Amino acid sequence: MTKKTWRVGVAGLGTVGGGLLQFLAERPDFAPAGDRAVVTAVSARNKTRARPVDISTLAWFDDPVALAASPDVDLFVELIGGSDGPAKAAVETALKAGKPVVTANKALIAVHGAELAALAEAQGVPLLFEAAVMGGTPAVKMLREAMVGDDVVSVAGILNGTCNFILTEMEKTGRSFADVLREAQGLGYAEADPTTDVGGFDAGHKISILAALAFGCAPNFEAAEIEGISDVELLDIKLAKDLGYRIKLVASAAKTDDGVAVKVHPSLTPLYHPLAQAGGALNALFIEGKRIGRIFIQGPGAGAGPTAAAVAADIADVMTRAVRPVFQAPAGALAPFIAIDPARAVGKAYLRIMAKDQPGVIAAISETLAECGVSIDSFLQKPVEGAGGVPIVLVTHATPESNLLDAISRIEKLQTVLERPRLLRVARI
Amino acid sequence: MTKKTWRVGVAGLGTVGGGLLQFLAERPDFAPAGDRAVVTAVSARNKTRARPVDISTLAWFDDPVALAASPDVDLFVELIGGSDGPAKAAVETALKAGKPVVTANKALIAVHGAELAALAEAQGVPLLFEAAVMGGTPAVKMLREAMVGDDVVSVAGILNGTCNFILTEMEKTGRSFADVLREAQGLGYAEADPTTDVGGFDAGHKISILAALAFGCAPNFEAAEIEGISDVELLDIKLAKDLGYRIKLVASAAKTDDGVAVKVHPSLTPLYHPLAQAGGALNALFIEGKRIGRIFIQGPGAGAGPTAAAVAADIADVMTRAVRPVFQAPAGALAPFIAIDPARAVGKAYLRIMAKDQPGVIAAISETLAECGVSIDSFLQKPVEGAGGVPIVLVTHATPESNLLDAISRIEKLQTVLERPRLLRVARI
Repeated sequence: MTKKTWRVGVAGLGTVGGGLLQFLAERPDFAPAGDRAVVTAVSARNKTRARPVDISTLAWFDDPVALAASPDVDLFVELIGGSDGPAKAAVETALKAGKPVVTANKALIAVHGAELAALAEAQGVPLLFEAAVMGGTPAVKMLREAMVGDDVVSVAGILNGTCNFILTEMEKTGRSFADVLREAQGLGYAEADPTTDVGGFDAGHKISILAALAFGCAPNFEAAEIEGISDVELLDIKLAKDLGYRIKLVASAAKTDDGVAVKVHPSLTPLYHPLAQAGGALNALFIEGKRIGRIFIQGPGAGAGPTAAAVAADIADVMTRAVRPVFQAPAGALAPFIAIDPARAVGKAYLRIMAKDQPGVIAAISETLAECGVSIDSFLQKPVEGAGGVPIVLVTHATPESNLLDAISRIEKLQTVLERPRLLRVARI
Repeated sequence: MTKKTWRVGVAGLGTVGGGLLQFLAERPDFAPAGDRAVVTAVSARNKTRARPVDISTLAWFDDPVALAASPDVDLFVELIGGSDGPAKAAVETALKAGKPVVTANKALIAVHGAELAALAEAQGVPLLFEAAVMGGTPAVKMLREAMVGDDVVSVAGILNGTCNFILTEMEKTGRSFADVLREAQGLGYAEADPTTDVGGFDAGHKISILAALAFGCAPNFEAAEIEGISDVELLDIKLAKDLGYRIKLVASAAKTDDGVAVKVHPSLTPLYHPLAQAGGALNALFIEGKRIGRIFIQGPGAGAGPTAAAVAADIADVMTRAVRPVFQAPAGALAPFIAIDPARAVGKAYLRIMAKDQPGVIAAISETLAECGVSIDSFLQKPVEGAGGVPIVLVTHATPESNLLDAISRIEKLQTVLERPRLLRVARI
């Protein structure tokens, strides 16, 4: 094996970047293949901020694109974030200069993955992004490398630790979404602008990447159907639990003969299912293959330690000189992403209908459901104090989404019903 | 990327070999890197046995060593099994001829891994064995590649599907070990000679390999402390459950400043712990790293489909031309395996003491335990029909194993005690 010292340039010095600098300073020879990795140049928004490691001996770049272009950098690590702007420009610059790129940027890969893969493959350099999904839990490597002897038909899991923390706390403490979000922000688990996390977009980026790896298609974030957790009410968490379910933000991707469906929804998971049991900031994922069957992985989805370790593992992979496509197939051969019309999706659903406490309510609702071809699996009516009406809750048998939406519109119009019924999906896991 | 057709020679045509032949016949171009894999030569004990694929067009070798040496084979797949004999000879022959080797042979790698790694690395060819541990669940790849940016401190899990099936059935149906074993043999889940599985040796091979990958030491099967499940009694399964535990065959490896401890024991796992919940033929593993924290993976541990898919993934890895050591460090730099004296192990334990139904029994036992420095965490006395005495069951606080063994010897000698107390460990998970 030829030994070499890789001069690593790191753009973005937040907690992950700081963790990586610290690790490589202590363990430049960590990679089993024997090469060394030494950070020689850095770039960040603020040069003078207090940091856990001394960066005064490293080359400083105000502009990450200039860092990526520097002839003194052999391997570029992008930890800036964001699907466009400086992150994209810097990654493109590094790839065009024939430098391997390691990134933790899920938005960049989910949105521009196909074109960046084409660029990397044309240049014959790796573009690795293990840290973009599930932090230190190697979901990317599993799908990209370990499952190539199989045909993956679906992946589904919990990919956003912030949402999982919030939902876990809401259930545990009986507090509202807004209340728990404020706490999470105080603890640093949620950003000042939490939209990316609680809006489901972060999970959407991640599941778009996993779908591309699983199915050999180009990542297509635009096609993902995304619903976040900001409208999840405590009432639904409680009622779902009475029915034997826990509400989780489930990201899923499934492939059928018709195409690919990529979704993020607050979803009901059976209480004793491993996804329901993954609490707090944990991430968890099921991978289902035709030959292998079901594989489950679970671990910390974020944090400086795990994410920096994932970046380091990618750096070690670069050193092996492995030549493989960025996704499951060379960029030119990635299958087009054919999104399945969501209305054609078939699944079980949870409906909460707030009704007046009057005779005939249940008859009217169940008649409407029957007319729309929606049949009921379980049913619960329970007075809830201060709920402003009687919540009637039911879980349907598997039903086409279009029938469900039809039923919801009709039920909303019933005289005895107070508001549009709340729809939540039951996770297909 | 240079395209190439790899001529694959497969020695051993059991269910895994058959599954692999079928897969490669259907999908010779499965590997993302673009090379093709075509099986050209095979070897097995019986040429004429009915097989799911037609082998009449392939070169046949009675001797796997001759197959490994054949100039018409570029990549050798060893599915014969056994730590020595033809499997070892053939793998050595292939490596010496500079051919990449893919094997599912856990015994071979656990016993001779270090010398084979040295040979492979001297020749500059990969020696891959994903299928040796957890079938299609990529535990090997995770430890070898994804965890290199971390320091793994322990791995623990369920690595033998046959034992897990037997223990699950014993609990579910209330039948004895011997009974369920016979059923498992009838179903083909257990071999006619079940020693390798139920004696814990198969799990011992696998955990020895994982320890080497996790800690960068040479695999050392000899140093593993192994206890199988043939002495697990239904009585203990029931009593453990009353105390909130399920008995599983847990394989574990832990690294401390003193050295490495590799163990296989029937162990108590808390009922709601993921390892306790992994039933039937499932395999499951926790990996704990200093930076990443705890990762959990679970999946099918055996079977033609999953294992053949793991072999195929290794073949795809060969095609990437990745250059990395066989274990976590080059063979010459593997740390010596320093086994920790089992007597120095500290952990919680389950003791079942069969006593006469007499006054003073509990006083005598608890006095003895106190004298030996063993303190009690939970305690259960429960009449059991036909048990020939009263079982007194307790779970200790964490105690040095030497104290426990001392207490057991002394309790055995008490007048009121009928037999040597049964010791089971509580898994440290």
